[in-house]
Amino acid sequence: MTQRLLVIGGDAAGMSAASQARRRLGPDDLEIIAFERGNFTSYSACGIPYWIGGLVDDRDKLIARRPETFRDEYAIDVRLRHEVIGIDLDKREVVAHDADAGREVREGFDHLVYAAGAVPTKPPWARTDAGGIFGVQTLDDGAALLAWLDRASKPRHAVVIGGGYIGVEMAEAMIQRGLSVTLVERDSQPMSTVDPDMGVLVRDSLVDLGIDIRTDCTVTDLVVDGGDRVRAVRTTEGELPADIVVVSVGVRPNTALAAAAGFPIGVTGGIRVDLRMRVVGLDGVWAAGDCVETVHRLTGQAVHVPLGTHANKQGRVAGLNIGGGYATFPGVIGTAVTKVCDLEVARTGLLEREAEEAGYQFVCVQVESTNRAGYFPGAQPMTVKLIAERRSGQLLGAQIVGRSEAAKRIDSLAVALWNYMTVDEMAGLDLGYAPPYAPVWDPVLIAARKAVDAIHADNPIS
Amino acid sequence: MTQRLLVIGGDAAGMSAASQARRRLGPDDLEIIAFERGNFTSYSACGIPYWIGGLVDDRDKLIARRPETFRDEYAIDVRLRHEVIGIDLDKREVVAHDADAGREVREGFDHLVYAAGAVPTKPPWARTDAGGIFGVQTLDDGAALLAWLDRASKPRHAVVIGGGYIGVEMAEAMIQRGLSVTLVERDSQPMSTVDPDMGVLVRDSLVDLGIDIRTDCTVTDLVVDGGDRVRAVRTTEGELPADIVVVSVGVRPNTALAAAAGFPIGVTGGIRVDLRMRVVGLDGVWAAGDCVETVHRLTGQAVHVPLGTHANKQGRVAGLNIGGGYATFPGVIGTAVTKVCDLEVARTGLLEREAEEAGYQFVCVQVESTNRAGYFPGAQPMTVKLIAERRSGQLLGAQIVGRSEAAKRIDSLAVALWNYMTVDEMAGLDLGYAPPYAPVWDPVLIAARKAVDAIHADNPIS
Repeated sequence: MTQRLLVIGGDAAGMSAASQARRRLGPDDLEIIAFERGNFTSYSACGIPYWIGGLVDDRDKLIARRPETFRDEYAIDVRLRHEVIGIDLDKREVVAHDADAGREVREGFDHLVYAAGAVPTKPPWARTDAGGIFGVQTLDDGAALLAWLDRASKPRHAVVIGGGYIGVEMAEAMIQRGLSVTLVERDSQPMSTVDPDMGVLVRDSLVDLGIDIRTDCTVTDLVVDGGDRVRAVRTTEGELPADIVVVSVGVRPNTALAAAAGFPIGVTGGIRVDLRMRVVGLDGVWAAGDCVETVHRLTGQAVHVPLGTHANKQGRVAGLNIGGGYATFPGVIGTAVTKVCDLEVARTGLLEREAEEAGYQFVCVQVESTNRAGYFPGAQPMTVKLIAERRSGQLLGAQIVGRSEAAKRIDSLAVALWNYMTVDEMAGLDLGYAPPYAPVWDPVLIAARKAVDAIHADNPIS
Repeated sequence: MTQRLLVIGGDAAGMSAASQARRRLGPDDLEIIAFERGNFTSYSACGIPYWIGGLVDDRDKLIARRPETFRDEYAIDVRLRHEVIGIDLDKREVVAHDADAGREVREGFDHLVYAAGAVPTKPPWARTDAGGIFGVQTLDDGAALLAWLDRASKPRHAVVIGGGYIGVEMAEAMIQRGLSVTLVERDSQPMSTVDPDMGVLVRDSLVDLGIDIRTDCTVTDLVVDGGDRVRAVRTTEGELPADIVVVSVGVRPNTALAAAAGFPIGVTGGIRVDLRMRVVGLDGVWAAGDCVETVHRLTGQAVHVPLGTHANKQGRVAGLNIGGGYATFPGVIGTAVTKVCDLEVARTGLLEREAEEAGYQFVCVQVESTNRAGYFPGAQPMTVKLIAERRSGQLLGAQIVGRSEAAKRIDSLAVALWNYMTVDEMAGLDLGYAPPYAPVWDPVLIAARKAVDAIHADNPIS
């Protein structure tokens, strides 16, 4: 008998689940309907700052797969501009609002995938419809922002609120568009996604680019002119003139609908799922992507890490399981990379403050090296920081800032951390060496050696 | 009482051992003498092809540390142009020939580090003093070759014999110097350090560069003219004109002296050492670098892998132990990277033929992807191949060929293999993702996923 899978949310997690399920079960076995409230499926939100900055010239390049592809090649009934407004777990049905037809539709399900993503955090001051204020979550957000930049009275002063990954990327994009940029950060430093001693390198690079950075600075209000357009940002450090404001102060799991339907919500605000991405306690109901919470493999604690790479993996796992296979999502270790101006910034595992919060005692080391043999053309400096548990030497975290061929070096550290390696074990790792790609001691190995020395100084056993 | 450490060989392994021992013990505790038969200490042999090709403009840039540095900063008595000609383990003394003074010197030791490196394989036809025939092992080799290129009658036709890493690098260097180049390879393909299906990409790239490749071709003799200069290379496929010949047909452990003194020699021809780099069965005697054999962590078999990165690590381990510390060298997994024309080539673990020889049954998968998000400027193609054990899915080997930001991706695969991960575990790895550095599924993860599918097709458990 044909079963039916309903998917709520047509982005990375939802469409990965749908297409993986389809790979295992044909249309005779599984009918698949996907509801998406927006106009697109499976697009790269991470690419929006590069589109706005002009590095990517066409919105459509950010769309990985179009609805037609899902319909024609995967026999998935994708319904755009359909916002799901209710889930009835007892009746096993979903109610959606079809924006084009202006009516409600009701569909039953055997399997349900909830993949509604995340919603931008909206402080009270951000709850306004005034012109010139933008988020950067959807392609529509990006298009609206670009249209604003192209107005007859071209904006000249941008204020970017929030100095995380997206804020920093958007500040750079605004510079590339020729605007003057002020970046407002509540914390003592932008990019608090790395430790302060590494973040200072990022800060310097942003300043070099001409960005005016205001730290320890909290936004209190937006000032709007007579034409209902933003005119300034009011902060604890005074008023900042602005004719365009980008708000990137974080996101939270989009769970209103799920919570109303009785889904279990975890301490992070995300939906609770098991290893196979089944919603805890609900039969035939799955969730994946930015709306769920997952486990940090190092601390064992629940975390909410809204990243496309996890959403894709989780969606794939859900889809494989729905299709009758067996797959699990093993958790995360906090790996992230980003490009800031001419810097590559990467991290994995715990920051110092996170390691402290988790109750670890640890040593930190930092080394300076290069991406290639020092004598090889194109050799560029790179800083590697390691955090290792004080007694065992187990790697707890790593951060890298460099200018070239630096960011993806975090991967070998991530795999080492994933496998609970100690820095002593890591110092012996057989990594690739050739002058165009590394010094004879790779920066990763130099850092591991220094960490071994620091651990031994702390535990004099030899 | 002051003890004495004698080091035989002043390159990576020997000088790493000496300087690490010095870091732990001052001159009052440990006197250190290093004998080096050549003119340099601690140089990058791996950099010689780039110096010859002109990418590195100065020989001295290849010297990591000069004798004066060791003398002044490490209090190590470095004796250049001293060839050790005898080791007496009973008397615990070494006899060296001082080439400048033309006499023998004799020194006793408490600790001995044997780090005599490797010597080039010399087929019968290579045993000639005729002009125009060069190896590329030492800086003196490189200088002689460069001088030959600068002769009044400039050489125009180069024949490079041997298509391994160094042969391929030297073929490219000769092209960069404006010569026509023929590469002679005994095997069916150059770069047999990767599987044929990956090596064909390298071959194509060499051909595009204008290199004439002769495979399944064995050298039988060198033809010399009246002025005792090389004129041609005679092969099983006919005579190849040459006014310069580069010989790179491999190296073997330099153990003549050690074997004569009674050191144990293993099946690979390398000196047998334990985890701490102590020569098996000999008290206070250590060996490190290209002259020793080590263990392959995957097969457990003895292997001889002459690479600077291992030599440095092994030297460090020996030095730490001599200095009273505790360190071990954990073996190798066959990681290697190289640049061939515009290609980056990398491998770790076992090739297909090596996995067969080791008695494994396995699946192979190959995927095409890109180094960055497909829409991001500078995205370049990359091919990743994985070899996984058929039943467990354990990663046995990986190879990468790409055009940019490809080679060092082998490191995350090397760490996964080092930790005996299965491809199923690898598909869930938390690797770095951002559009400038990877597609949302890194090529490494795409390959792992495909390998999971191949394993499951072979073991239908779900």
